[in-house]
Amino acid sequence: MYSERIAGVRSSAIRDILKLTTRPGMISFAGGLPAPELFPMEEIARAAQNVFSKYGPSSLQYSITEGIKPLREKIAKKVYDGQGIGVENIIITQGSQQGLDLISKLLIDKGAVVLTENPSYLGALQSFRLFQADIVSIPSDEKGIQVKKLREALNSVKPAFIYLMPNFQNPTGVTLSMERRTELIELMRDRDVLIVEDDPYGELIFEGKSLPTLFSLARGKDIVYVSSFSKTIVPGFRVAYIAADAEIAGKLALVKQGTDLHTNTLGQHVVNEYLESGNHRKHLDMVRQTYKTRRDLMLSAMEKHFPKSARWNKPAGGMFIWATLADDGTDSKDILLRCIEKDVAFVPGREFFPDGSGGNTMRLNFSNAAPDDIEKGIKRIGEVLAGMGSEKRE
Amino acid sequence: MYSERIAGVRSSAIRDILKLTTRPGMISFAGGLPAPELFPMEEIARAAQNVFSKYGPSSLQYSITEGIKPLREKIAKKVYDGQGIGVENIIITQGSQQGLDLISKLLIDKGAVVLTENPSYLGALQSFRLFQADIVSIPSDEKGIQVKKLREALNSVKPAFIYLMPNFQNPTGVTLSMERRTELIELMRDRDVLIVEDDPYGELIFEGKSLPTLFSLARGKDIVYVSSFSKTIVPGFRVAYIAADAEIAGKLALVKQGTDLHTNTLGQHVVNEYLESGNHRKHLDMVRQTYKTRRDLMLSAMEKHFPKSARWNKPAGGMFIWATLADDGTDSKDILLRCIEKDVAFVPGREFFPDGSGGNTMRLNFSNAAPDDIEKGIKRIGEVLAGMGSEKRE
Repeated sequence: MYSERIAGVRSSAIRDILKLTTRPGMISFAGGLPAPELFPMEEIARAAQNVFSKYGPSSLQYSITEGIKPLREKIAKKVYDGQGIGVENIIITQGSQQGLDLISKLLIDKGAVVLTENPSYLGALQSFRLFQADIVSIPSDEKGIQVKKLREALNSVKPAFIYLMPNFQNPTGVTLSMERRTELIELMRDRDVLIVEDDPYGELIFEGKSLPTLFSLARGKDIVYVSSFSKTIVPGFRVAYIAADAEIAGKLALVKQGTDLHTNTLGQHVVNEYLESGNHRKHLDMVRQTYKTRRDLMLSAMEKHFPKSARWNKPAGGMFIWATLADDGTDSKDILLRCIEKDVAFVPGREFFPDGSGGNTMRLNFSNAAPDDIEKGIKRIGEVLAGMGSEKRE
Repeated sequence: MYSERIAGVRSSAIRDILKLTTRPGMISFAGGLPAPELFPMEEIARAAQNVFSKYGPSSLQYSITEGIKPLREKIAKKVYDGQGIGVENIIITQGSQQGLDLISKLLIDKGAVVLTENPSYLGALQSFRLFQADIVSIPSDEKGIQVKKLREALNSVKPAFIYLMPNFQNPTGVTLSMERRTELIELMRDRDVLIVEDDPYGELIFEGKSLPTLFSLARGKDIVYVSSFSKTIVPGFRVAYIAADAEIAGKLALVKQGTDLHTNTLGQHVVNEYLESGNHRKHLDMVRQTYKTRRDLMLSAMEKHFPKSARWNKPAGGMFIWATLADDGTDSKDILLRCIEKDVAFVPGREFFPDGSGGNTMRLNFSNAAPDDIEKGIKRIGEVLAGMGSEKRE
């Protein structure tokens, strides 16, 4: 009865386990949620009232598929300083997950190859699998995707596109280095292959300088750029966007029309109004500062409580720390099961690896953890790791 | 570069023509929009403020894929009086267009047959085409789909599903008769074929008694029911829903997760809060009354201004009147072009016919037309029709 594509979309065992993490007393580093206590509630409530009084019923009526114009203008400016791109390049989407869905619909035929980093964002993999893509992963390291390996792959396969998250990647927190960005753009020149650049976390930078997006380095050529207001304002509006050349944007709008007509009108208007209020910059600084503090708390707790054999990175932004444990055959899924008994949770890494490796890795979210819980939760994980380590030694 | 499925999704010539209808002075009966002047703006603004103060940041955070529980409970009650169905049967979708998208994703493999009425809702056809369905249409008449013809079709083909809009169909305004509903349920028994019942207009009933949905007649068995708050509250939230047996609902949730994670949280909360305010019944009565008045105005204007050879129906609810002109070779697309010169518009019927017939039909929307404009606009169309008629006679 069900379509063939559904066979590739199984309910994740991990997701089922993680449902347990909503019980009281649980400290969860598993989600990828922004900190709700930082949401600019007053400003948003005010923006909503302004929208109702300024725009009246049109703020609640059907609206055009591409998205409301004033918001698309702001996005065009933001994505590329308004130079060379305009509203015709911007499609507002129902969250960036929908951005990936529309792109998949537009570009993936059954069996088409999609190249990704290894590991890569789970939501993107789900989206590509729903369109029966053949996901081929390219090794990545602490500087992001290995461009040399990508070149080799491109010599033998023509993919529907290459999917990358260059800033503070989910799950690894890694940033694609400037050198690799340049190499990548060079590599792509004249290859007629699209890159889908997913950038939900780029603005959540804690230190150093923001690197230019691939979209801006390539002046928009052959790059489909996906980003969102979910991590910088709030997720609940589901207001995100795609920037692409006008032809691709036009096709995406056609696809979106058949998919959900348009993104919710009220959310678009409230985001637009909120951005006009001029408080966004300040809010964003506060969010960055808070997440940086939480990252640092988590890093020093890990220093104290994690075994000597474990390694992890210090992400310069985003929401996640990525830890790699000794490769002694322990699967982080088993660690999770023990952790849940101790009321603490994280995401085991394997699901992020299209090639099925990564059994000794774990993703730890720091953005949505209360500072008090960070030390406590990491200590609990450390205890589980120590206990399992000593079992091994016995 | 683009996927195969995109070839089936062309920009509609009609849609391009209808872009002209936003110019000032134009009287448009083309859209399918609810009347914005009837939107319960104050109640919604109040509901939004209540949501912010009652639920705080959680009203703007990520939320579960299936939709927020209190709203799903209300929907479960509404769809089937709460007997036998509960939250586990309800998935909240981003408009009912997304409902159709998720159903298509779950059920349609490339080349699978989908049976529809002839004519059928254009948005549904677009959705099915995006999944490369083979759309086979079954004749329908003033009582809805011809069950006898459907039986014949089912003897030779096993469709992915049958798509029907039994109440005040878009585009024809036709209601599936009680007799045919019963026959249909009888026919489907033990056939293991799903019906997708699309019911956006069922509550917009002007006269007579509401007929039971197929979903309630079949006690939910093998029926996937799709409906929306877009026509009864406002469209701009994009809050709609699917009711289905728990297994199908679970699969749809999996698909939705990969599609857009979840429906916008704020819209769901505001709709839920608005429904709790208890004014909805009264609001709905007012909307029905207003639309009925507009329907009657349009009918009497057509009586006065349309040629004797034209026929049309008197829909008992919904938003559309469907007119059939003399079958003298004139295409209603050409009529539209002349009408636009006279600042009046409608939708030519052919696009609604999967079999490409219906060149002499037109869909006229009355819900979103100001009463003053109805007489004026219909008169203009009548003049164009008279002019074209006399050209023929010359």
